[in-house]
Amino acid sequence: MSTIAPRTLINWRRQFHAYPETGWTEFATTARVIQTLESMGHQVLTGTQVINPDFVRGYNQQAVKNSQAAAKAAGVDEGILLRIGDYTGCAAVFDTGRPGPVVALRFELDCVNVQESTCTSHTPQQENFASSQPGFMHACGHDGHMAIGLGVAQWLMDHRDQLHGCVKLLFQPAEEGVRGARPMAESGILDDVDFFACGHLGCDIPSNTIVAAPEKFLSTLKIDMSFQGKAAHAGMEPHLGKNALAAACHTTLQLLSLPTHGEGMTRVNVGVLHGGEGRNVIPSHAQMQVEVRGENEKINNFMYEEAMRRAQGAALSFDVQLETQIMGEAVNFVPDDEMTELIMSIARDIPSVEHVQRSMNFNGSDDATVLIKRVQSHGGKAAYFVIGSDLKAGHHQSEFDIDEDQLFTGYTLFTQLLERLLLAR
Amino acid sequence: MSTIAPRTLINWRRQFHAYPETGWTEFATTARVIQTLESMGHQVLTGTQVINPDFVRGYNQQAVKNSQAAAKAAGVDEGILLRIGDYTGCAAVFDTGRPGPVVALRFELDCVNVQESTCTSHTPQQENFASSQPGFMHACGHDGHMAIGLGVAQWLMDHRDQLHGCVKLLFQPAEEGVRGARPMAESGILDDVDFFACGHLGCDIPSNTIVAAPEKFLSTLKIDMSFQGKAAHAGMEPHLGKNALAAACHTTLQLLSLPTHGEGMTRVNVGVLHGGEGRNVIPSHAQMQVEVRGENEKINNFMYEEAMRRAQGAALSFDVQLETQIMGEAVNFVPDDEMTELIMSIARDIPSVEHVQRSMNFNGSDDATVLIKRVQSHGGKAAYFVIGSDLKAGHHQSEFDIDEDQLFTGYTLFTQLLERLLLAR
Amino acid sequence: MSTIAPRTLINWRRQFHAYPETGWTEFATTARVIQTLESMGHQVLTGTQVINPDFVRGYNQQAVKNSQAAAKAAGVDEGILLRIGDYTGCAAVFDTGRPGPVVALRFELDCVNVQESTCTSHTPQQENFASSQPGFMHACGHDGHMAIGLGVAQWLMDHRDQLHGCVKLLFQPAEEGVRGARPMAESGILDDVDFFACGHLGCDIPSNTIVAAPEKFLSTLKIDMSFQGKAAHAGMEPHLGKNALAAACHTTLQLLSLPTHGEGMTRVNVGVLHGGEGRNVIPSHAQMQVEVRGENEKINNFMYEEAMRRAQGAALSFDVQLETQIMGEAVNFVPDDEMTELIMSIARDIPSVEHVQRSMNFNGSDDATVLIKRVQSHGGKAAYFVIGSDLKAGHHQSEFDIDEDQLFTGYTLFTQLLERLLLAR
Amino acid sequence: MSTIAPRTLINWRRQFHAYPETGWTEFATTARVIQTLESMGHQVLTGTQVINPDFVRGYNQQAVKNSQAAAKAAGVDEGILLRIGDYTGCAAVFDTGRPGPVVALRFELDCVNVQESTCTSHTPQQENFASSQPGFMHACGHDGHMAIGLGVAQWLMDHRDQLHGCVKLLFQPAEEGVRGARPMAESGILDDVDFFACGHLGCDIPSNTIVAAPEKFLSTLKIDMSFQGKAAHAGMEPHLGKNALAAACHTTLQLLSLPTHGEGMTRVNVGVLHGGEGRNVIPSHAQMQVEVRGENEKINNFMYEEAMRRAQGAALSFDVQLETQIMGEAVNFVPDDEMTELIMSIARDIPSVEHVQRSMNFNGSDDATVLIKRVQSHGGKAAYFVIGSDLKAGHHQSEFDIDEDQLFTGYTLFTQLLERLLLAR
Repeated sequence: MSTIAPRTLINWRRQFHAYPETGWTEFATTARVIQTLESMGHQVLTGTQVINPDFVRGYNQQAVKNSQAAAKAAGVDEGILLRIGDYTGCAAVFDTGRPGPVVALRFELDCVNVQESTCTSHTPQQENFASSQPGFMHACGHDGHMAIGLGVAQWLMDHRDQLHGCVKLLFQPAEEGVRGARPMAESGILDDVDFFACGHLGCDIPSNTIVAAPEKFLSTLKIDMSFQGKAAHAGMEPHLGKNALAAACHTTLQLLSLPTHGEGMTRVNVGVLHGGEGRNVIPSHAQMQVEVRGENEKINNFMYEEAMRRAQGAALSFDVQLETQIMGEAVNFVPDDEMTELIMSIARDIPSVEHVQRSMNFNGSDDATVLIKRVQSHGGKAAYFVIGSDLKAGHHQSEFDIDEDQLFTGYTLFTQLLERLLLAR
Repeated sequence: MSTIAPRTLINWRRQFHAYPETGWTEFATTARVIQTLESMGHQVLTGTQVINPDFVRGYNQQAVKNSQAAAKAAGVDEGILLRIGDYTGCAAVFDTGRPGPVVALRFELDCVNVQESTCTSHTPQQENFASSQPGFMHACGHDGHMAIGLGVAQWLMDHRDQLHGCVKLLFQPAEEGVRGARPMAESGILDDVDFFACGHLGCDIPSNTIVAAPEKFLSTLKIDMSFQGKAAHAGMEPHLGKNALAAACHTTLQLLSLPTHGEGMTRVNVGVLHGGEGRNVIPSHAQMQVEVRGENEKINNFMYEEAMRRAQGAALSFDVQLETQIMGEAVNFVPDDEMTELIMSIARDIPSVEHVQRSMNFNGSDDATVLIKRVQSHGGKAAYFVIGSDLKAGHHQSEFDIDEDQLFTGYTLFTQLLERLLLAR
Repeated sequence: MSTIAPRTLINWRRQFHAYPETGWTEFATTARVIQTLESMGHQVLTGTQVINPDFVRGYNQQAVKNSQAAAKAAGVDEGILLRIGDYTGCAAVFDTGRPGPVVALRFELDCVNVQESTCTSHTPQQENFASSQPGFMHACGHDGHMAIGLGVAQWLMDHRDQLHGCVKLLFQPAEEGVRGARPMAESGILDDVDFFACGHLGCDIPSNTIVAAPEKFLSTLKIDMSFQGKAAHAGMEPHLGKNALAAACHTTLQLLSLPTHGEGMTRVNVGVLHGGEGRNVIPSHAQMQVEVRGENEKINNFMYEEAMRRAQGAALSFDVQLETQIMGEAVNFVPDDEMTELIMSIARDIPSVEHVQRSMNFNGSDDATVLIKRVQSHGGKAAYFVIGSDLKAGHHQSEFDIDEDQLFTGYTLFTQLLERLLLAR
Repeated sequence: MSTIAPRTLINWRRQFHAYPETGWTEFATTARVIQTLESMGHQVLTGTQVINPDFVRGYNQQAVKNSQAAAKAAGVDEGILLRIGDYTGCAAVFDTGRPGPVVALRFELDCVNVQESTCTSHTPQQENFASSQPGFMHACGHDGHMAIGLGVAQWLMDHRDQLHGCVKLLFQPAEEGVRGARPMAESGILDDVDFFACGHLGCDIPSNTIVAAPEKFLSTLKIDMSFQGKAAHAGMEPHLGKNALAAACHTTLQLLSLPTHGEGMTRVNVGVLHGGEGRNVIPSHAQMQVEVRGENEKINNFMYEEAMRRAQGAALSFDVQLETQIMGEAVNFVPDDEMTELIMSIARDIPSVEHVQRSMNFNGSDDATVLIKRVQSHGGKAAYFVIGSDLKAGHHQSEFDIDEDQLFTGYTLFTQLLERLLLAR
């Protein structure tokens, strides 16, 4: 019953791969998704229709403007850019007009801030679809997720007469940094959803394997820390400075040495640190992008509170001011058994799938958990599965590359799920 | 015999103050100097006529391009920008046509990377000449030096018939970071110079005071350090990362704790640190701008070698690659007694000068020492004096401001020096 | 069939508690065990009969001498001290003379280096059996383990006519630091053992609960690191020093910030750091006691290699010499199902036991795993169980205290196990 | 007029060298001084006659007891030990009975905590007078100072009939750590003193050179810092610990990176750090011995306040308790011109002295400045001179050794000073 050629999925994926955009700046990407969906005949919501600005965090106005200008310069349709406005993301709402459940599927738009490998052995280089945006790369698989999402959109159109109920295809911005899910949830778009599903390619699971219900989604908080000190001439009056960079370096080392926890897994990272103004000036400011994670909310909060105390101590040590802001969050979640069984049953029937596994340790965070919590809170059921893919290098590494054959496996899993949930019987 | 109104000096200084440009990007500033000099009737050299590109260090191509574009956008004459080319700096060469000594005076063009105070009590805010360039500020007094230099240029024109010999007014780029002097020296422009002089406003010396020959100019080396590690997903595979930011933070703390030296003064600063790519990625790169100083070359070299060893150790600890590059240098110097006596004698005769002091501890670095060394190497004589000025805050602080009345004192000192050296008798 | 009063176990435990001795210095403790065993009629081996000196690590000659002298001063029988010699530890070998399996049980002798709480609410203070040795405390439960071991010894004597085979009661020194098991294994005492069992009180498991086969015993390596630099007068010639303490502090922070691992649990601790010679001397030496752990041997080796590289980097940074020595080790292990089932079955029949649990995450290390590996290597079967006990504070904390009622539970579990394995039928 | 053989001075020095004792534990040393002085016929005060216990700091009761016991074991006369009591130090009070000024000279008793070199090329090893006390060494020259002091004592006796006035020979304990001067001053022994003098061997000044009045005695404060956290099992419950050692390591690095000061010299050292209880316990305590210095009291106070703030910040970061205690102090001082001239005049007349220098930068601290301040406060005059000596290695290094020929030069300088001040004319 599949209606799409595997090559079409691959082509879409490569187009997304070649033009990666980081969270909240996915203007060209959102526009490409909208245009493709609308060319299939879908109705598409975007901008504040799917994003509640009150809940947007980690939004860089200058980066947004630059990206809008770049999209325009790259020939993106100005009408569509106007519809998107200042908030990326979109959703196709496919209503069969026949009574039935509401199903939401979610795909992510954004890339990571990694410089893509220039090795000639790196397939995107060989096949000429490597990132055109220096410092940015789809090194997490979201390009593949979007390709699958478009494939599903096409399948819906091709089967519109056989289906009941309603499907919402959510193309979420800013998953990296776990920022986009909350404002999408707060737009209300999930509030009538009965079934929610999403999947992730890779995750150290080999090709031709499906994991139906990974465990150990880590709760996480994303925190920006900013130290403000006092500049001084480093030669003449070093004693008059208040060294914000020294405070930030000590904080970094204090955070990296947060203790592990006897009750479960922890993670901490200082992903970005920018400090100082000039070589011969005692640095008067420094900014840090921090994240903590824990196997559950208790452990995550322990990490957060310890991290905050350490930053406060370093600020005291160096007599500088500290400001902190929470920039993103994800929670842990419990999959619904009914959905897990359904995914396992579907997966076992997919010819290309050789192994079906009930669970694994995810050991990462995904703000899909925020969407899932919203759906579960009114009685909906949710699934999060992993579509195995041999990888050339781990997620977020510059030589990351997926096994493109698995796009069709993912497409099949999603479409079979819709068939089971919505096929008119 | 003065021919300029104090107010003119102040106006020039304020124009420079309002549009600060950092080292190697002083396009609008250089253009303003050239236009003013040429409007007086001076012949002006610029670009590669005064800068030998082979010796340029700490040059940021992107910043240069942005600054050229900004200058154009701000209405700077494109013909002048064309003459300047890619290398800022200029020199008026004033030849009387009469036999006599060659005298060079040096003034600096660049600002520091400090955000100017927005306090309403800050005079540049009150009087409406605060920096229009966010993050940049003339917080070292170079704006005043240039104003004095233009005043001297006017005086030369007004006294052209009474003078012998030749005067070169050097407007040097990139003194901060001690980068501009070496390529200016290597242009050959100083190779016929018999007397060299320059001065600095402020330096913790009160208004109406002249220090004829400060001591303890610190030898210094400016070093860029760059660490290259390996990115990895901070949640799923933190153990696969090679954390370049952690290496940089440890290096920073190890540098800040370089020992003091039993034989003389030392300084060290990590002025800028940028590291990491994204919040949830183990940071794969980090860059640092470092400087060390010593009371003499031996101590400075001790500091340099210790600093390099520490960075190498941190690179080993975190299994990351280290690259370093020397970006600037200044040396210590011995003033010529003949010039010191001359400066003291002149200063005592200036009505506004209440105190004349032979020496002080400079405790800083200035690449004028590189120019001086060049002049002294062929038998020329050199002076470096301090023009006292009450300051609102120390050099490189955001509330730094000079006592503008001292501009005229500086102007008088320079012009009297020329009169003593070059007046036809 | 129990033959001992619960109060006897408690009394023994309190005697051990009042006189704690750290690893390899348990002279008074070993003597007390020997005397008690021999008073029951047991044959006891000690010194090099149970310890192979070639495999002894983490042995402090001075501490050993001090402890021998202290034991003598405290009135311990000199003849027994002579038998013990320089190596603590002993074993009762109980041979029924009748054919049957050989069973080994293991109990630990040593305390931890923790200062016991002086709070009046702390039971050992109230009941007057707190540690008489400042800085040392049975804060891990080994006092209780020994009491159980003596109870089992009494039971054996009371049932000598009904039993087959042979029982070896091993009283192992230096479990803390996982140093004592290897030299005990290398004495050969386990090489005819068919069944091995040991247990641990507490471990965050509540009273009246038995866990039959905990998982996640962490592989661990104990490493001593020593830095040798160069002393210098901190006022006159600080630049001549090579600061070993600075190297050790950086190493400490670098070790504490070892990354977590995507594939399983990790631990790292710098438990002791001693550095420097005098306040006004640049420190020329520093010693550290370090441990790393990993959920399996691969992860543990990753931690070890990263730790070593970091120490080497810090040594390079500060131009000091590094020496390292491995001081102890423990491995992970797989319990034998046959033994697990037996323990569960016995535990279910103990009246005081309310909950029997198959497994838990141990999250710690115990060098019993080294003994177990030895037994399993020739086909023997092994069990390691947890005897739950409500605790006043966690292990190694100064207010740690066990629920003494659980001593009898532990005694019952061990003796029932012997009954099942050795009762003449 | 000299009355002592140079060889006698050398023998005394070697006896002191062979048995070094650290501050407040100089029992054998004090006893040797007392016995020698009394054998010459001097009256000697000791214990609380010269030390005011209320002002004693940095006193380790256990070390005192051990040293008393060791002195007894080494055969030191018990009667003399009884007279000394618990406070080391003594003073010969030599009263001519004739009217005249009161002169005080000061010599130090204590060694430093440095392990003496075992190189066969090290003279004390070759000549068999190396330290018999492991970890302790006269590596600062105090052994030579005492030898000179005894020589002066002999000279006084030999010239008792020719002299006027009174001489007090102070043998001060605990100069290292600048602890002994304050309680000696507070005993009142200096309150009638008209002239005070002391000297130091070495200080990077070559043999046969006298420096009459060194400058840049650094003000200093000696601070003990103690962190108290919470122990926990490093494997099972690392998150429950409060890591006092981590706080101490961060404090150490933060102190070592205290900024230099634009107005003058600074020093900082963390000379000793002891932390932690056991390898597998999160460290619950750590102690540090810290010193800061500054070219003047203002700079020293700046360093002290910054150091305290940093320690407080680190305590906050790691949620541990901080206690600090000031353990010693020295001040800067201004020599009296009259005394300086006198020293220079005497030095020029000593045959073995080739160079006489008015001043030098001392760059260190000596609590003689506390004694001097006491004398100057009631109008007395003071001198502190340096007796040059070629050194085998710098002060406080394990291969430190003096040129013993300079002992006689020092002796001559002191005795000539007494002759000039006290000779009956």
